[in-house]
Amino acid sequence: MIRIVIIGTGNVASHLIKGIQNSDSLMLAGIFSRNPNQETIDAFGDLLFTDLAKIPAADLCLIAVKDDAISGVSEKLLGFQGVVAHTSGNTDLEILAKHGRTGVFYPLMTFSKHQRLELKKVPICIEAKNAENELLLYNTAVALSENVHRISSEQRRFIHLTAVFVNNFVNHLIYQGKVISDNNNIPFEIFSPLIEETIKKAFSSNPFNAQTGPARRNDTKTINSHLEILSDPLQREIYELLTLSIIKTYE
Amino acid sequence: MIRIVIIGTGNVASHLIKGIQNSDSLMLAGIFSRNPNQETIDAFGDLLFTDLAKIPAADLCLIAVKDDAISGVSEKLLGFQGVVAHTSGNTDLEILAKHGRTGVFYPLMTFSKHQRLELKKVPICIEAKNAENELLLYNTAVALSENVHRISSEQRRFIHLTAVFVNNFVNHLIYQGKVISDNNNIPFEIFSPLIEETIKKAFSSNPFNAQTGPARRNDTKTINSHLEILSDPLQREIYELLTLSIIKTYE
Repeated sequence: MIRIVIIGTGNVASHLIKGIQNSDSLMLAGIFSRNPNQETIDAFGDLLFTDLAKIPAADLCLIAVKDDAISGVSEKLLGFQGVVAHTSGNTDLEILAKHGRTGVFYPLMTFSKHQRLELKKVPICIEAKNAENELLLYNTAVALSENVHRISSEQRRFIHLTAVFVNNFVNHLIYQGKVISDNNNIPFEIFSPLIEETIKKAFSSNPFNAQTGPARRNDTKTINSHLEILSDPLQREIYELLTLSIIKTYE
Repeated sequence: MIRIVIIGTGNVASHLIKGIQNSDSLMLAGIFSRNPNQETIDAFGDLLFTDLAKIPAADLCLIAVKDDAISGVSEKLLGFQGVVAHTSGNTDLEILAKHGRTGVFYPLMTFSKHQRLELKKVPICIEAKNAENELLLYNTAVALSENVHRISSEQRRFIHLTAVFVNNFVNHLIYQGKVISDNNNIPFEIFSPLIEETIKKAFSSNPFNAQTGPARRNDTKTINSHLEILSDPLQREIYELLTLSIIKTYE
């Protein structure tokens, strides 16, 4: 049984807490929240701590707080005897260097607190400096997910950057599409099957081969007809830059 | 029974042909191909025509050829007595104006010839100038799909433009993400659950509310740390422009 303390009650923390509670080989030893609301107090009762100096002994402490709070939290955990790991995509393992036993436990997903999510499918990227600590993180990760990867801090930075392209930026393009379609009284759900198929194709073949559209065909007539009806300056810039980028990709 | 002639054997045509052959209320009267290959000849036999002057009588002729070939094809169909409709997202109904009975029959999807696809889920956008022709298109569309919409030429142009954002550009961002991840020996499949969740969230809530990431938080430190490791000039430009666009969206 691996005993785990969770620091934080936000989006990532709440999904990890649920996962730990549903696992036979993991045990939730405590949850730290600086300012718990009534919902959190009701939900966790005796497991809840509001003083970092008082968190219970455990094998693993997972720091699931905002990136810029990790350092401050970790300095208050110097008495903790287990492995201290953070859950951030864009933070080096070295930030925890004052601890003897450290690691990273990064779930690659976009989390919202009340979303239903199959944690089993979420890739968990682990990193540690020695085999013993890595094994603890690995055993914890496989108890939560079928999709566990050993990833260095350097690689993790690029994973986080890639995630910005394929999650944040993709969502923003869908948003811009919705603005265009709303402005013209088009029901946006009409695009749902197209987007699903786009994603399916990008992964079943490969996004290089799956590219279609006027930019891919270098179809200047269609490109110009689109620019004619695009009045928003930022949408035009996005259209022009991504069109240029697609054309250059296939030159 | 609605008798249909299909002009073309490309990506769109081949899926429409399959759909018609699987429908109880539609009948494939003929297929036109300028230069059929052996596979096409073997598949369609007597249904195949290579001379537009010889296509059989039918209720509906669907022109499923490249946008810039529609006009030329339609001029050779002046003897055709049924409704002549094209399947293009970015072409006005007026291009068929020399015919008495015209329409548009636009399936909103990214088609590849040998892809498995549930045509039933594909939105079909129809347009006609009078009720009789519209009814024929409508009855044909509902025989193929559960997702039929009456859409004007003006709206259809914006649908096509939106599709460029949510299909072509989204695919290109996934491609750029794959380039970054390949360059750093990260298995790209690791991003598949994240992308699926991104799409699910964008439609179940709304892409405006679903936006996350450093640009959404105006997190300059993370944005700069990404720009530090982005060496490709076009990828940097894309990163900077989409980050700016997200920041401006939530100002």
